Amino acid sequence: MSGSTFGNKFKITTWGESHGKALGVVVDGCPAGLPLTEDDIQVYLNRRRPGFSQFSTPRKESDQVEILSGVFEGKTTGTPISLMVRNTSQRSGDYGDIATYYRPGHADYTFDHKYGFRDYRGGGRSSGRETIGRVAAGAIAAKILKTLNISFTTYVSSIGDIVSDPADFDADYISKNELNMPDAKSCEAASAYLSDIMAQNDSIGSTVKCIVSGVPAGLGDPVFDKLDANLAKALMSIGAVKAVEIGDGVMVSENTGSYDNDGFHIEDGVVNKNSNHAGGILGGISDGSDLLLTCHFKATPSIASTQKTINKSGENIDVSIRGRHDPIIGPRAVVVVESMAAITIVNALFDNMSARMDKLVEFYK
Amino acid sequence: MSGSTFGNKFKITTWGESHGKALGVVVDGCPAGLPLTEDDIQVYLNRRRPGFSQFSTPRKESDQVEILSGVFEGKTTGTPISLMVRNTSQRSGDYGDIATYYRPGHADYTFDHKYGFRDYRGGGRSSGRETIGRVAAGAIAAKILKTLNISFTTYVSSIGDIVSDPADFDADYISKNELNMPDAKSCEAASAYLSDIMAQNDSIGSTVKCIVSGVPAGLGDPVFDKLDANLAKALMSIGAVKAVEIGDGVMVSENTGSYDNDGFHIEDGVVNKNSNHAGGILGGISDGSDLLLTCHFKATPSIASTQKTINKSGENIDVSIRGRHDPIIGPRAVVVVESMAAITIVNALFDNMSARMDKLVEFYK
Amino acid sequence: MSGSTFGNKFKITTWGESHGKALGVVVDGCPAGLPLTEDDIQVYLNRRRPGFSQFSTPRKESDQVEILSGVFEGKTTGTPISLMVRNTSQRSGDYGDIATYYRPGHADYTFDHKYGFRDYRGGGRSSGRETIGRVAAGAIAAKILKTLNISFTTYVSSIGDIVSDPADFDADYISKNELNMPDAKSCEAASAYLSDIMAQNDSIGSTVKCIVSGVPAGLGDPVFDKLDANLAKALMSIGAVKAVEIGDGVMVSENTGSYDNDGFHIEDGVVNKNSNHAGGILGGISDGSDLLLTCHFKATPSIASTQKTINKSGENIDVSIRGRHDPIIGPRAVVVVESMAAITIVNALFDNMSARMDKLVEFYK
Amino acid sequence: MSGSTFGNKFKITTWGESHGKALGVVVDGCPAGLPLTEDDIQVYLNRRRPGFSQFSTPRKESDQVEILSGVFEGKTTGTPISLMVRNTSQRSGDYGDIATYYRPGHADYTFDHKYGFRDYRGGGRSSGRETIGRVAAGAIAAKILKTLNISFTTYVSSIGDIVSDPADFDADYISKNELNMPDAKSCEAASAYLSDIMAQNDSIGSTVKCIVSGVPAGLGDPVFDKLDANLAKALMSIGAVKAVEIGDGVMVSENTGSYDNDGFHIEDGVVNKNSNHAGGILGGISDGSDLLLTCHFKATPSIASTQKTINKSGENIDVSIRGRHDPIIGPRAVVVVESMAAITIVNALFDNMSARMDKLVEFYK
Repeated sequence: MSGSTFGNKFKITTWGESHGKALGVVVDGCPAGLPLTEDDIQVYLNRRRPGFSQFSTPRKESDQVEILSGVFEGKTTGTPISLMVRNTSQRSGDYGDIATYYRPGHADYTFDHKYGFRDYRGGGRSSGRETIGRVAAGAIAAKILKTLNISFTTYVSSIGDIVSDPADFDADYISKNELNMPDAKSCEAASAYLSDIMAQNDSIGSTVKCIVSGVPAGLGDPVFDKLDANLAKALMSIGAVKAVEIGDGVMVSENTGSYDNDGFHIEDGVVNKNSNHAGGILGGISDGSDLLLTCHFKATPSIASTQKTINKSGENIDVSIRGRHDPIIGPRAVVVVESMAAITIVNALFDNMSARMDKLVEFYK
Repeated sequence: MSGSTFGNKFKITTWGESHGKALGVVVDGCPAGLPLTEDDIQVYLNRRRPGFSQFSTPRKESDQVEILSGVFEGKTTGTPISLMVRNTSQRSGDYGDIATYYRPGHADYTFDHKYGFRDYRGGGRSSGRETIGRVAAGAIAAKILKTLNISFTTYVSSIGDIVSDPADFDADYISKNELNMPDAKSCEAASAYLSDIMAQNDSIGSTVKCIVSGVPAGLGDPVFDKLDANLAKALMSIGAVKAVEIGDGVMVSENTGSYDNDGFHIEDGVVNKNSNHAGGILGGISDGSDLLLTCHFKATPSIASTQKTINKSGENIDVSIRGRHDPIIGPRAVVVVESMAAITIVNALFDNMSARMDKLVEFYK
Repeated sequence: MSGSTFGNKFKITTWGESHGKALGVVVDGCPAGLPLTEDDIQVYLNRRRPGFSQFSTPRKESDQVEILSGVFEGKTTGTPISLMVRNTSQRSGDYGDIATYYRPGHADYTFDHKYGFRDYRGGGRSSGRETIGRVAAGAIAAKILKTLNISFTTYVSSIGDIVSDPADFDADYISKNELNMPDAKSCEAASAYLSDIMAQNDSIGSTVKCIVSGVPAGLGDPVFDKLDANLAKALMSIGAVKAVEIGDGVMVSENTGSYDNDGFHIEDGVVNKNSNHAGGILGGISDGSDLLLTCHFKATPSIASTQKTINKSGENIDVSIRGRHDPIIGPRAVVVVESMAAITIVNALFDNMSARMDKLVEFYK
Repeated sequence: MSGSTFGNKFKITTWGESHGKALGVVVDGCPAGLPLTEDDIQVYLNRRRPGFSQFSTPRKESDQVEILSGVFEGKTTGTPISLMVRNTSQRSGDYGDIATYYRPGHADYTFDHKYGFRDYRGGGRSSGRETIGRVAAGAIAAKILKTLNISFTTYVSSIGDIVSDPADFDADYISKNELNMPDAKSCEAASAYLSDIMAQNDSIGSTVKCIVSGVPAGLGDPVFDKLDANLAKALMSIGAVKAVEIGDGVMVSENTGSYDNDGFHIEDGVVNKNSNHAGGILGGISDGSDLLLTCHFKATPSIASTQKTINKSGENIDVSIRGRHDPIIGPRAVVVVESMAAITIVNALFDNMSARMDKLVEFYK
């Protein structure tokens, strides 16, 4: 237990269930002196909000964040920052039956087994709403990184078998469409596809990619706190993620060494890589080039079509899940992926500061 | 820094470089009363040993383990277990040049950047030999799990584009071939392919799968210490891994909810899943069915063919890496994957013990 | 940084400053199934509340706690429990000057140096109000321990040089007097003494003792997570504590081995100790007898009498601190000491569960 | 369990029992670039060695340390440093009986209860020899601190009721006498006293003080990782310590605020404290003045005089412990206290580096 804390010197502790009073996070270890307002965080939270897209649940939550501590006269004090979002639109009525059976693809069965009982309303702690805490903390992490010129480009790269063609990639387009896809062509095809899926009372999987630029070389602590190892944990911890790739990812198992190795060359006195199959991480340590991360999300488990399962009395039954559910997870998860990556990188930046005697001596001079 | 420790209540700290005096691990948190001998550990280490396959480096190491503490009269005492393997076959002469340049695909550049300098002999701490500590600890973890009837089937499922057909799967065949593949047909094809690769002074990627049976339901601590999140970290931390999949892995992003959801049914009073797309983990918690894990390994970076890179003076150069190197990582990594999975699961078993009041009260009755 | 988290499997993260919006704690790792209400926690918080004793600050705070997550239908769910108390009685006007100088005995200077600036209102994060989070979490820990028949007797054993005579000890009297002393005679003497102290615009130190009964033998993980080591950290972390003693404490440095050793004897088949100089802990592990803990609190730093210090411009100045302050810390700290001890013991109980193979096998049978 | 690891970014894991093959430590997180040789460590180990003083056990161990990893061409590489000392002078014959009974004052009873059985030879893991790992790591920590001009003066300040008078304090004398006392007068008196104690087959307690100079202000992370809290844990974890004091320690509970507050004054542009009752730590953070630490050690439990205890069959018996034992712990513990303080301070230095945005930005410029 006690698995709701992540990070070392930038440590976040999230809390809250989908149908409880509120959700939030405590960020412990944000350096002092960072300008911070509710707006900085609200911008991030708005990117995950339900009820604003034809493709997401009609449940409307304003999800307004409140900063309860850790900020004084507009800047972080270095003390813990507590952030909270009150739940305003729970409809417990939608969930009454669920207490009695185990929804396929949901954590009902496993939570029941682990804890002896569960808050059956919605997903409880396993609900997508627990990402509110992650994203609120991610907003702070992103602001720290921005100060160091580290930036993110995160988007939905595929929905079902509709894959965005890298040749059509347009970073500016990502925030201009509801699906957070990076080109109009695949976005259009995916929209049509999603309408079909919804008409069939079904849901579909998706892929989210995250490019991180400006990461200094040297981050990551071999052998277990390698940057890719911690990113894998951070991303796999997001609900519905079933695979994480770095750089060429699964393709590396099919390629040769001569193909895969990213050689170096000097250009105008700057070290450059000849390619980036590695995705910016070598030997578990960042190499100065873009980090290339990919997460694969399964389809939303809650679907209205009929499924076979069992109830708590041990009987085989058929169920059809009502309620307000997204047919796809990827688009709203883009900001979650970005947040977890940001939090992990901030931790790696802090952890790296004690790597060398010369830097230590200089710091305390 | 300080990234060489993994785990919580079963904590391992590995140490050692490929060309230092020795390598080893301290296992802190092994319960008292487990029968343990050097042989238990040697069996595991032998599975990763070089010099015994036509497809692996001819460097011969006997890699004999010594138990230095934590065991008394044949059983663990509950105190830290220190294990050591002396290096006996380093050939520093092979590596003299490397001090002056950055080998493509290796951690030379990143280690130099992080620490200011590096032990350039072989891979130093980034060498595959650091897995000795992981495997020695993995042997202990596996023994604990065996006591609880948890077992592993780990194998190389693909080499390049040669993929083992699940229909031909034969668990007994795995340990009978040098490539640790699970069927004779793909093994044969892969062997021929590897000979070609070696003739071209190249290397090739591979995939390792690990099936864990008998895992009780309820392991994993949402939301950050989910079982899959910790497995992802454990596996991604293994050198050369660039992707980790749970269950259907990357395929989930292409599938629908109606396809992907594993429903339940009761059979002879026992709860069974209708399918196992989830790979045994739901909501980050084990569900009692087999864990299905997949790791993708890139090709060995050290290849004799000519590559372009830079030297420490900032000049563009061509290099050809001599020395004794494997053309493929997967076969020798099978036991490493199994070890990291075992260590992660032991941790989850321990961490789960305090999940419920009724179990706590019973324990201290 | 990130020092606001304590514990391992029962992990608490506190947040909040004396003059911020609110204070609170997230408790991560409370087992599922513990009945819990706001009342359980309010009882503990009420024991530390200001404004209710002639000897404490007249500042009145109702300090009502709100449970925001982690409880469903009256029982803990095993998910994080977020507790919050809103500040209602801050008077920032009392503190305006303090921004410009460093109060002696306060953390103004050190916070400024560490963070570059500080929330100068009251003690900010270094204020005694940060103990609200500790006590709220302590209430939960105490409830868990009560279920296991572990109980506390915590009291003020001395104020200045007025020491309660063990021969007069009356546990029932502790909660019947404002000073939380265990006998009427010393309480009376101390009250008179305190009135003098207050008349002199001064403050005085005190000692708090905590007896924990019913702790099972075997808790504590040598060599660094010994039970006494973690208790020392927990108690020393409480503001104003400058010494921690276990059992005979400082007296052991003056005594012989023949005096100090607690021998054992069997009485009616039960193992008993002949004495308890060790204070219930031997080799860092609980031995089944009462834990005897002592904390020494310095006098409240905020006093109205004139003191010499410097201001932020580097000038030597005289100051006299106005505002509403306690002349003594001990009485209100009793519940804080008890809370930190409870939290530490709960952690030790959880951590001990994986100590033996036989118990592990039985748990997962 | 798993309690043998201490620290965060400078993490040490010790291992080994008094009668096992060897003892040692893995230091994970030492910055790269620190010159380090076996001699640096041997100097520290020699300060704790038995068999070289008329007042310590005649058991002779050469305790030669071997560096097994983490150092290359004379400097640390930033990878884990594994240090080992082989046991050469165990006499298991001295301990044969102990398997059958519980020695008073020793951890026999508690280890048996926790683990189900124990390595009964000598103290096993609870033996003073486990400090070998602490001291070896402490040597490295001390070398890092020396680079930053942080130094230690550690000594035995009292033996029984013979207390060194601060007026006679002579730092140079400490290393010139077997008892590590800081003045000839008390040393002489204590020697005579010890001879009496030994003649009575008894042992006596002692106090060790440690002054740390040159510690920069700002170290320590409120509220739980305060510098004094972590020092308390580090010191209390040393076997036989029953009390830890910071600055005036237990005396603070008897003093007033006007006495105890250390005001500030400016002298030649430098901030100075008017006094140092606080012992260099304010609000849990170092204030730039000397750290003043005190540990109280109980008498050695192993004494030859007759004591009452029980055996494993539950019978009341009398025992007289033979074997080679120190009559006092303090003198040989001086270097252990210094080591634990050094390790804690190194951790605080590293943890502090991410406290402020301006320093973070400068570091990554």
